[in-house]
Amino acid sequence: MSAKNLRFGLFLGLFLICSVAVHGIDLWPMPKSVSHGSKTLYVSREFGLYMEGSNYSDGLGILKGAFERMVDLVEASHVIDGNSSGSGVLSGVNVVVHSPEDSTFSQLCSFNFVTRVVELRSAPWTISDLPRFPYRGLLIDTSRHYLPVRIIKGVIDAMTFSKLNVLHWHIVDTQSFPIEIPSYPRLWNGAYSYSERYTMADAVDIVQYAEKRGVNVLAEIDVPGHALSWGVGYPSLWPSASCQEPLDISNEFTFKVIDGILSDFSKVFKFKFVHLGGDEVDTSCWTITPHVKAWLNQHHMNESDGYRYFVLRAQKIAISHGYDVINWEETFNNFGNKLSPRTVVHNWLGGGVAQRVVAAGLRCIVSNQDKWYLDHLDAKWEGFYMNEPLTNISKPEQQKLVIGGEVCMWGEHIDASDIEQTIWPRAAAAAERLWSPLDKLASDPKQVTARLARFRCLLNQRGVAAAPLAGLGRAAPSEPGSCIKQ
Amino acid sequence: MSAKNLRFGLFLGLFLICSVAVHGIDLWPMPKSVSHGSKTLYVSREFGLYMEGSNYSDGLGILKGAFERMVDLVEASHVIDGNSSGSGVLSGVNVVVHSPEDSTFSQLCSFNFVTRVVELRSAPWTISDLPRFPYRGLLIDTSRHYLPVRIIKGVIDAMTFSKLNVLHWHIVDTQSFPIEIPSYPRLWNGAYSYSERYTMADAVDIVQYAEKRGVNVLAEIDVPGHALSWGVGYPSLWPSASCQEPLDISNEFTFKVIDGILSDFSKVFKFKFVHLGGDEVDTSCWTITPHVKAWLNQHHMNESDGYRYFVLRAQKIAISHGYDVINWEETFNNFGNKLSPRTVVHNWLGGGVAQRVVAAGLRCIVSNQDKWYLDHLDAKWEGFYMNEPLTNISKPEQQKLVIGGEVCMWGEHIDASDIEQTIWPRAAAAAERLWSPLDKLASDPKQVTARLARFRCLLNQRGVAAAPLAGLGRAAPSEPGSCIKQ
Repeated sequence: MSAKNLRFGLFLGLFLICSVAVHGIDLWPMPKSVSHGSKTLYVSREFGLYMEGSNYSDGLGILKGAFERMVDLVEASHVIDGNSSGSGVLSGVNVVVHSPEDSTFSQLCSFNFVTRVVELRSAPWTISDLPRFPYRGLLIDTSRHYLPVRIIKGVIDAMTFSKLNVLHWHIVDTQSFPIEIPSYPRLWNGAYSYSERYTMADAVDIVQYAEKRGVNVLAEIDVPGHALSWGVGYPSLWPSASCQEPLDISNEFTFKVIDGILSDFSKVFKFKFVHLGGDEVDTSCWTITPHVKAWLNQHHMNESDGYRYFVLRAQKIAISHGYDVINWEETFNNFGNKLSPRTVVHNWLGGGVAQRVVAAGLRCIVSNQDKWYLDHLDAKWEGFYMNEPLTNISKPEQQKLVIGGEVCMWGEHIDASDIEQTIWPRAAAAAERLWSPLDKLASDPKQVTARLARFRCLLNQRGVAAAPLAGLGRAAPSEPGSCIKQ
Repeated sequence: MSAKNLRFGLFLGLFLICSVAVHGIDLWPMPKSVSHGSKTLYVSREFGLYMEGSNYSDGLGILKGAFERMVDLVEASHVIDGNSSGSGVLSGVNVVVHSPEDSTFSQLCSFNFVTRVVELRSAPWTISDLPRFPYRGLLIDTSRHYLPVRIIKGVIDAMTFSKLNVLHWHIVDTQSFPIEIPSYPRLWNGAYSYSERYTMADAVDIVQYAEKRGVNVLAEIDVPGHALSWGVGYPSLWPSASCQEPLDISNEFTFKVIDGILSDFSKVFKFKFVHLGGDEVDTSCWTITPHVKAWLNQHHMNESDGYRYFVLRAQKIAISHGYDVINWEETFNNFGNKLSPRTVVHNWLGGGVAQRVVAAGLRCIVSNQDKWYLDHLDAKWEGFYMNEPLTNISKPEQQKLVIGGEVCMWGEHIDASDIEQTIWPRAAAAAERLWSPLDKLASDPKQVTARLARFRCLLNQRGVAAAPLAGLGRAAPSEPGSCIKQ
């Protein structure tokens, strides 16, 4: 299903007739094509799902679940105690769908405070939709701060509202190793505490929860540079007790452990990609630690040879488990021509990288930190919206190699208390850039401020702690006022 | 039920035997008396509720609902896929209860990462519990910023975890009038926007949701000073178009509207108290508006006479609808001897007020802003914990008149995006002060820092965005680290 999610969008059609009302198109992100009439339909309490003509096999009950969640969203904002019988009742929706989708239709429905029923205004609607980029990601970081399973599920729920479809789970890093690895059970000795851990069953639960909602989970281990916590359970993975990262390149056990982790991952994380990191590698521990330095000399490698050797060997292991590999851009910047052709290069340092990556014939994901790092509170929603992944990439065959983009919620100052309002609504601004056709995107963010503000209020109504648009990231409202004006 | 909640606590007993384990008492707030053994019980997947000996009528299914939520909390943190069969299985809990309660037992249970089942350690437990103060409140403000129904329900859920039992709903104020008043339907023309409103059915939904969880909803209209938004729908409630508050004391219609609101309230808000505000009344509009000034002269009143007249007349109206009245302390400070004996004086300006109020024979609620205002981000949890409502009140009959305290989450800079982490964990620190016996309270907050930190992590695990203890209110974590150390 994962691969399918990356390829297909959605077609939703509604055809019914009723009494009059008109309003504008208030959807986020903006679909590929929308047309509507001027009628108002009342959503029946026995609202049903019809799938005539659908070629989507719903064996997993994915569409049914999505439909039930959609109805819940439609009905959640206020108590519906009006009478919706009689003509003009919308008794169901006939959907032809290629991927689970519960966001568009629910945004079209609104509570009528006079009739006390939910209505679909400006009907009939004809919406044809398809994502511009197949990969629309959000990174979370459970190493700098542990995120409870319930919080991660909340992030996934909110992702679906703006059609983000890849949860990049930066699971482990220097600070902690929270996840269980059955092949090497002492690895999670590197967790912060007894309770700040995930079992493999928790990981399966998260992956299935996401899959049901059309979200793929991309697992990352960041080697060799961001892996100090691995040595808490297995100290021989450290060059020495006093110099603890990068991982000891001279120790065969290091690669055995990587193989064990990726073998265990392949049973749980079914997405076609795995992320191997490879960024910010300071190799000084290798040269000041005698047995590592000796191993490098013996193999006629300098530090940068060693870095390349490590990354490429890790890639081979991942590929042997059936994965395509994603690496941070330093690997491309240092030895791009040596990377596996199955590599996707993950940009983060700045702009202008994607055009070099695709010119080299590799795929690329755009996350330039100046625009798409959510932990940069001075990066405002306007910059998230305007950041164009295809800048200076004109050839169609090169454009295809940019599979999408990702906004990154690094966890140094993020935990369960502030993750939602640091992510939203800025991530939603990037989500429209990644979903909507170029000709539907505003050339000036001012043109979409009001629509995004209304979408932010909708997120609040759905229980998502999305912050005001005004000010820095996650800024508190500066004064009393209406949600839609802040 | 409301009144009963205010009087009774809970007795919970568990008597079973099993394999060995020991740990300390890790409950928040600390119960009246706790004793435990050194056994470990495994919670059966068919965990059941037994009510032998209960004298609690559960006609509303309140206890059953509370029990189901408790089991959900117990099982929510991790996937339970271990085998809990055999001896030492905790197959149920025998509860004798006088009020709905789902917090204590769930805090005793924890997930065992080895056996993969939920266990109750240090059993058997004998817990006898009873709140120190009957009124343990939290104020929310839906006038400065609208709070969606789902967000309010989330606040109620979190209140139950630390045994707060009164949601003080400051519904309307100068800035907006979000709630429907059937008797005067144009009042909610004062709402911020079409969708930022509550129907009466929404209010009923919120009250019933709270009642099922042992939380009373205290409704407030803040007259005459904080009522400008009333005039949007009925301009004659303003002294003039250019001088719009306090409400026009010279207009009989003003009191008709107050009567209509309280009449409608009495059908929905079944708590024994209603809050009539009465704070921060600037009467200058009365004296500079000719027809109001003429009315005052005609009735031989100066401004302060008018203020007293208004408050006392509003009290009579509330009492005529069966309510006891709560007023902010300025009413007591200005004409305490004239207030109805059924008045509860709500302190907020500073300390030392309660002792004067109870000396005058009136009841009091403590909310001194320097310690218990949550919107004061420089008010730290230690101050919330140490704020003693009975300071300088030694006579038992006077102590009884302090019915409790309340922490206040004023909404000028609070909306759905930041309310949870601004409330928690500071409100929980006050909750222990209001719940636990004096001899169980720490004389130095340092003695409870670790326990409160663990409770904050538990809130996170339950999906509540409780902030780190360190730093100002709702501060982001200052660096990577374990939840229990921040």
